[in-house]
Amino acid sequence: MSNPEMLRALKAIVGTNWCLDTPADLMAYSYDATPLYQHVPDAVVVPGTVEEVAAVMKVAEEHRIPIVPRGSGTNLSAGTVPTSGGLVVGLNRLNQVKEIDQENMTATFEPGVVTAKFHQQVEAVGLFYPPDPGSMTISTLGGNIAECAGGLRGLKYGVTKDYIIGLQAVLADGRILQIGGKNAKDVAGYDLVKLFVGSEGTLGLVTEATARLIPLPETRRTALAMFTDLTGAARSVSRIIAARIIPATLEFLDNATIRVVEDYARIGLNTEAGALLLMQQDGTEAVSERDIARMAAICKEEGAFEVRLAQDPVEEAALMSARRAALSALARKKPTTILEDATVPRKHLAEMVEQINRIARKYSVEICTFGHAGDGNLHPTCMTDERDREEIHRVEQAFEEIFDAALRLGGTITGEHGVGEAKAGFLEWRVGSTGIELMKGIKAVFDPHHLLNPGKLFARENRRRVVVRS
Amino acid sequence: MSNPEMLRALKAIVGTNWCLDTPADLMAYSYDATPLYQHVPDAVVVPGTVEEVAAVMKVAEEHRIPIVPRGSGTNLSAGTVPTSGGLVVGLNRLNQVKEIDQENMTATFEPGVVTAKFHQQVEAVGLFYPPDPGSMTISTLGGNIAECAGGLRGLKYGVTKDYIIGLQAVLADGRILQIGGKNAKDVAGYDLVKLFVGSEGTLGLVTEATARLIPLPETRRTALAMFTDLTGAARSVSRIIAARIIPATLEFLDNATIRVVEDYARIGLNTEAGALLLMQQDGTEAVSERDIARMAAICKEEGAFEVRLAQDPVEEAALMSARRAALSALARKKPTTILEDATVPRKHLAEMVEQINRIARKYSVEICTFGHAGDGNLHPTCMTDERDREEIHRVEQAFEEIFDAALRLGGTITGEHGVGEAKAGFLEWRVGSTGIELMKGIKAVFDPHHLLNPGKLFARENRRRVVVRS
Repeated sequence: MSNPEMLRALKAIVGTNWCLDTPADLMAYSYDATPLYQHVPDAVVVPGTVEEVAAVMKVAEEHRIPIVPRGSGTNLSAGTVPTSGGLVVGLNRLNQVKEIDQENMTATFEPGVVTAKFHQQVEAVGLFYPPDPGSMTISTLGGNIAECAGGLRGLKYGVTKDYIIGLQAVLADGRILQIGGKNAKDVAGYDLVKLFVGSEGTLGLVTEATARLIPLPETRRTALAMFTDLTGAARSVSRIIAARIIPATLEFLDNATIRVVEDYARIGLNTEAGALLLMQQDGTEAVSERDIARMAAICKEEGAFEVRLAQDPVEEAALMSARRAALSALARKKPTTILEDATVPRKHLAEMVEQINRIARKYSVEICTFGHAGDGNLHPTCMTDERDREEIHRVEQAFEEIFDAALRLGGTITGEHGVGEAKAGFLEWRVGSTGIELMKGIKAVFDPHHLLNPGKLFARENRRRVVVRS
Repeated sequence: MSNPEMLRALKAIVGTNWCLDTPADLMAYSYDATPLYQHVPDAVVVPGTVEEVAAVMKVAEEHRIPIVPRGSGTNLSAGTVPTSGGLVVGLNRLNQVKEIDQENMTATFEPGVVTAKFHQQVEAVGLFYPPDPGSMTISTLGGNIAECAGGLRGLKYGVTKDYIIGLQAVLADGRILQIGGKNAKDVAGYDLVKLFVGSEGTLGLVTEATARLIPLPETRRTALAMFTDLTGAARSVSRIIAARIIPATLEFLDNATIRVVEDYARIGLNTEAGALLLMQQDGTEAVSERDIARMAAICKEEGAFEVRLAQDPVEEAALMSARRAALSALARKKPTTILEDATVPRKHLAEMVEQINRIARKYSVEICTFGHAGDGNLHPTCMTDERDREEIHRVEQAFEEIFDAALRLGGTITGEHGVGEAKAGFLEWRVGSTGIELMKGIKAVFDPHHLLNPGKLFARENRRRVVVRS
């Protein structure tokens, strides 16, 4: 820490125990789940109240030192790496579910609550908070809000933004902002709540939030279909939607992912399968049964050589693990796993997967693709080794071309992982120079001294979009 | 028109026929559905293409003349009244549904499309766009986007914001902004789409939008319950939610509204009833039947003296007309009908209605209350006469106290009608001075010369909140 006076001020606010600045502490907060990004902060503070967060912010503003808010650090776009140094503000001590209001079907909670624990708490009273990012057993709700986390249930139930209706946030100057609340409808002014969700810690530090909840579906049915090729799986997705079925989950794995998952989890997947669809429907028993049967029938008609229906929760868990285990399985293969997030309108799913495969071959890189077929939200995942600079260069070129391909299909550079620092250089490709200009204008309204998570969302340098045409 | 040069420029852009400036034309565009507000514009232009909108905007910017965008003018917060003069830009000629993309379940349309016609078009292919504001047979989708319109299906299906995922808008300097698209998930930067929805024409002119659609529910069942008093109706609402039923519609009428509706529509309502609930459930036949039966049973247990279940579409239409006719019925009673929009968290519904009744008695004004019970979104409606200045003053005092009461219950000054000019003075009560400051900052990013719908959202003068404590 270059400034002992500031450190003293911070320790006076949060207590000596919650201001961390040993080399080991700083190293522990120098990275998140994103490969290739690392930078030590100047210090780490872990405030215990909103007032402490506000006081820390005032000190940071006074000293013009960057603030990087952080939950569990499961971020995949380097959104919580302190790449400009400064203060990491850990929000994990603010971890209380303050209220589950059953009459209004809302919950009010602090940012450090772990997502899966929150699921358990609301489900215990028959309520449901659908966003279920892959990292939900570790991730915090505050992180989910910062990134507008999605998950496997996005197609039917939407994403974090669709549930957050109230926020308390500490602004860059230390003021505490209270916006939204428990109202089902509220059009009093611009929707600052939705603006904050997905703003990646660049507008303020969320210190409390209120989510609307919905009734927990009564039952759930799960099925898994294996196809010889991608085309059959993609056609099944199209026909399921055409039949006006909106499944609770409709996930996709390509052959490369299937092989790796089977090797890891031994759940009896046919490793010759060209593609796999994991399907889930929830609702009344009649609806779940009917829809899963209709989806199974469609898959068979489109050439699935095997369709398994889970008969009980144990079988369901086994089938789900085919998808939930994908990232862990892939991560074992090589030292470095880069999980991307290109997203296209649903009907271009097959085309996008083909493009990914073509691009992987072109650059001789190993990419497995899985993801949310119902959403068009794909996770092309590259297994590589960051020590091999030449290969990493090819990986970067491949992902650049994948983003370009997604945009050409009307898609986006990120469906649910956020822009962070990893994709900041590509944001202009998606939103244009006018979009960037407006977003930077908004950022400056909230954070005139650019202290909040600098380098995230907005690039220090934009990528030129010069990709070899396919 | 004070500036003949500008008028010539506008006529050159849109053609002489679409630039209106006779006294009769100006009078026709001097008001909207909001009582008490009227002001003639300097001219009216009705552009036929987005390029014409952009060219008009450039002329307006050059001459620093206000722009007031307008659809059908069904606004209830004076949002489309040109209270600062300037140019009204009618967007009704941009009235094409450009695409219904069944595979992606999206529709792309221009702002002048009438809401109910859009409903018919998407429902014809088995898709569903839920927002159904009371004015839907006249209102335009562009107006719905500007106000973030709600309606009778908000509790289960959300409001306009929950469906709009892509926009094209002309900015204050004439640039054309394209944001969002057809992606089910997209977290590339701040969500400018959601920021535009409900921005009341103060950030730009929406010239095209893309909405996500959902499958049209297979069936629908409708019931109507009459109660001797408000308490039974409110308890029924609480118990329906506690039973984890989310009805497609759950509407409320108080005794005063019931009397006026029956007098007008003759649908056999018991005019002694203290309150009425109109309930609708959709989904599969089994779900609709089951839920409507459960809701009917709850109402009976809570003292409903009559519960009617619609047996066919004709009966359904009759029951629905009890609610849909409310505003028309009330509007017949007195020369001036002021329809308000105070909203509270659902569980405070009965308390809010009691407050409204107390306040109406206190100021000796006639207020009927109906609205969306499931949302807590109430429409206290005052029948008065704007020529009676003394009574109007009491009406204004009463509404001021109603807003105050709603805010005390954690509610808001507007659930779905917008702030406009009518409630601009109260916005700070809801969002605080920090909220106003941030919103004005955002406004300035998009519209640095304050040309877009001036006087709307942000008050020329704030109301002091000095209300006699109850």
